Amino acid sequence: METDLQENKSVRKIEIVKLKDGSSFPCVDDIAIEEPLEIGLLYHRNGEKELKNISVTMRTPGSDKELAAGFLFTEGIISGNHQIKAIRHSESACSRDSENRVTVELAEDVVPQLMKAERNFYTTSSCGVCGKGSIESIRTVSIFDTRISEEHVISVAVLYQLAAKLQALQNNFSATGGIHAAGIFELDGNLLALREDVGRHNALDKLIGHALLTDRLPLRDNILLLSGRASFELIQKAAMAGLAIVAAIGAPSSLAIDLAKEFDITLLGFLRDNRFNIYHMGRSCRIEKV
Amino acid sequence: METDLQENKSVRKIEIVKLKDGSSFPCVDDIAIEEPLEIGLLYHRNGEKELKNISVTMRTPGSDKELAAGFLFTEGIISGNHQIKAIRHSESACSRDSENRVTVELAEDVVPQLMKAERNFYTTSSCGVCGKGSIESIRTVSIFDTRISEEHVISVAVLYQLAAKLQALQNNFSATGGIHAAGIFELDGNLLALREDVGRHNALDKLIGHALLTDRLPLRDNILLLSGRASFELIQKAAMAGLAIVAAIGAPSSLAIDLAKEFDITLLGFLRDNRFNIYHMGRSCRIEKV
Repeated sequence: METDLQENKSVRKIEIVKLKDGSSFPCVDDIAIEEPLEIGLLYHRNGEKELKNISVTMRTPGSDKELAAGFLFTEGIISGNHQIKAIRHSESACSRDSENRVTVELAEDVVPQLMKAERNFYTTSSCGVCGKGSIESIRTVSIFDTRISEEHVISVAVLYQLAAKLQALQNNFSATGGIHAAGIFELDGNLLALREDVGRHNALDKLIGHALLTDRLPLRDNILLLSGRASFELIQKAAMAGLAIVAAIGAPSSLAIDLAKEFDITLLGFLRDNRFNIYHMGRSCRIEKV
Repeated sequence: METDLQENKSVRKIEIVKLKDGSSFPCVDDIAIEEPLEIGLLYHRNGEKELKNISVTMRTPGSDKELAAGFLFTEGIISGNHQIKAIRHSESACSRDSENRVTVELAEDVVPQLMKAERNFYTTSSCGVCGKGSIESIRTVSIFDTRISEEHVISVAVLYQLAAKLQALQNNFSATGGIHAAGIFELDGNLLALREDVGRHNALDKLIGHALLTDRLPLRDNILLLSGRASFELIQKAAMAGLAIVAAIGAPSSLAIDLAKEFDITLLGFLRDNRFNIYHMGRSCRIEKV
């Protein structure tokens, strides 16, 4: 099981005052670190090297290279690990904080799909501003088919255990109470990898980036568990990674459900305390009560 | 007390299957609606009208005009209600969904600060990619001083009641369990306004947009309550609205605390169950135990 727990980088101790039932006392508290990460892309155009700043995201330090790779992949800018030549932390204008910039260098023959970097695909759609257009534009971009030929069978008992398994290993959340997680499980409930971040989308990009860099995509035969709510953006990223089963501890939004139906992704919500809701059941997925 | 509860627009009923303690049964569930909103800006340049698409945000329908106005203000693109001539829902390429586009028209003499629309101020800073640079850049842009001359006195009893007051009126959350809220209170605990959204930043932009459009900015003598965690971006928006006291039901991030200290904003976290943590106490703020 791989995690990105680097507590010194992800959590900071600070002095605070606690108030409880009318009494106040000073104490030391763990807080989740949030810092900007700038993602740069180095690629070749007409025989020249070109450097483009793609994004600045507010993230929890740790797994920065996975975050950069995962972001470029789930945004449709790159399509695989083979396109990446190198990923490195690099100097920014403020040398003290070179930890906050990562540059992804592409192989020489790779043309990055930079049009797709514009605002989460909206500009690639003929109609960018309705839910239907947003979903349609992802269909154009996604390289994996989430519709599986072989049947997926998951037991209710396995699903009931997932949240506890994620939380048990979510060290930074235990410390701070303020950090999201995304985890990848096998169908028998074995946790393969876990990533944490103050941003839900970053935790998932780190996890997908990890899968990308270790050549494990598509994640068709895995279960993705999200520690919070399931929004459109998270299901979009899951679809890009070829995931066929997504479970969330929180609620899904309307557009997340629409997208799951469109891509035939099994979508479960409120997975906690021996219960869950099924928002969409994939045609090739079966949940067994035994 | 003003809310934006438009249940038909914000919540949708769908058929799901519930699993609980091994039994499954079909039922009807309320889900939070998430749809893209495109924000357009219409302004004058060299005697010509110019239309620029500023942003697409995934939001819960309802209070769209407030969201657009609040977004433009907290991003530093406009500096006050007097700059706005009109706000209207407008047609998009997909006529069926004209509800998903809002155009803000500025008065003729107004020059929008469009450089500030770039990636949450990062480009306005000499160093965009470190926490210090992010904080510094907001200082340049914010028009209000959050440092107050008069002392703010708040009682512990008032603070203990805030979360319950917010949740009691958060109708869409009660229905869906999946929607954030931001509320503005008077120092005696009276709730003035509440806004809800699937996105935390949208709920706050709606609330600040409401204050902007009703000429109530700066919100120096109010308490802002956030239903979730306090990130850098939310404290940034609070600072733009001149807020001096921010309380969150969840945890704050490191950069949120740094920004609160820099702007001398009183920042409370984990405000629930007769307890809270003080992450920064403003110089002119006092919390009384009586």
